[in-house]
Amino acid sequence: MKIYYATSIRGASDENSDRINKFIIDTLKKYGSVLTEHFANLDKTIEGETELTDKQIHDRDLDWITQSDVIVAEVTNPSLGVGYEIVRGLEMGKKVFCLKANNGKRLSAMISGCDEITLFTYKTDSEIKDFLESVVGS
Amino acid sequence: MKIYYATSIRGASDENSDRINKFIIDTLKKYGSVLTEHFANLDKTIEGETELTDKQIHDRDLDWITQSDVIVAEVTNPSLGVGYEIVRGLEMGKKVFCLKANNGKRLSAMISGCDEITLFTYKTDSEIKDFLESVVGS
Repeated sequence: MKIYYATSIRGASDENSDRINKFIIDTLKKYGSVLTEHFANLDKTIEGETELTDKQIHDRDLDWITQSDVIVAEVTNPSLGVGYEIVRGLEMGKKVFCLKANNGKRLSAMISGCDEITLFTYKTDSEIKDFLESVVGS
Repeated sequence: MKIYYATSIRGASDENSDRINKFIIDTLKKYGSVLTEHFANLDKTIEGETELTDKQIHDRDLDWITQSDVIVAEVTNPSLGVGYEIVRGLEMGKKVFCLKANNGKRLSAMISGCDEITLFTYKTDSEIKDFLESVVGS
């Protein structure tokens, strides 16, 4: 199984986001190939990836979405790119699973109000693990 | 002409974002009907709109995108909803014009690297006005 993992890269990043990203990617790798695995190892500057042009990043990521069997998105932090990737996936008929920390902040209604998206709100790593196992582990 | 204006609602909002939103909407109103005009008058709490359910907001906004002739998006602040709306519009074949403040922060490569989007970086209100006139004023 090919999994596209979407997460905020250039948006607000903190140590906990980095940890959660790494945890989700490590969990997903048990069930398939994570096309965006490098997100766990990115130099976490606000710049994100710098070796490629924006068009090269865009076209590569769109190609990966096309190849993927499923999209998993971490939506705790606002992100233009993640919103973009979710809809590209939906329009291609991919299943989209969104994970959000139960942190009291409201999610965009375009995500939480979209019937085509499966949204899961988590408090603990263990809940993330169980959810991912239930949706991509079979 | 029906114009869908997309901007970060629940994400980081500050007085300048509010002012820019109002300025853009007032400018667009010279050229057509702005379906999301109420964004200029929203009670700017982090909650955004509270009278409608998330599904009602999602379905209304998607219907407005369907009705619109053109989409204008302010992309200075990260936003899941704006990224979502941009791609829904592109997939419907709408023209999408994005405005970003020249503030030194990099934009998501999914927006800046997407050939289907026309991106304009502004420093002044006058530049915003001239750009909008050139793309929706004729």
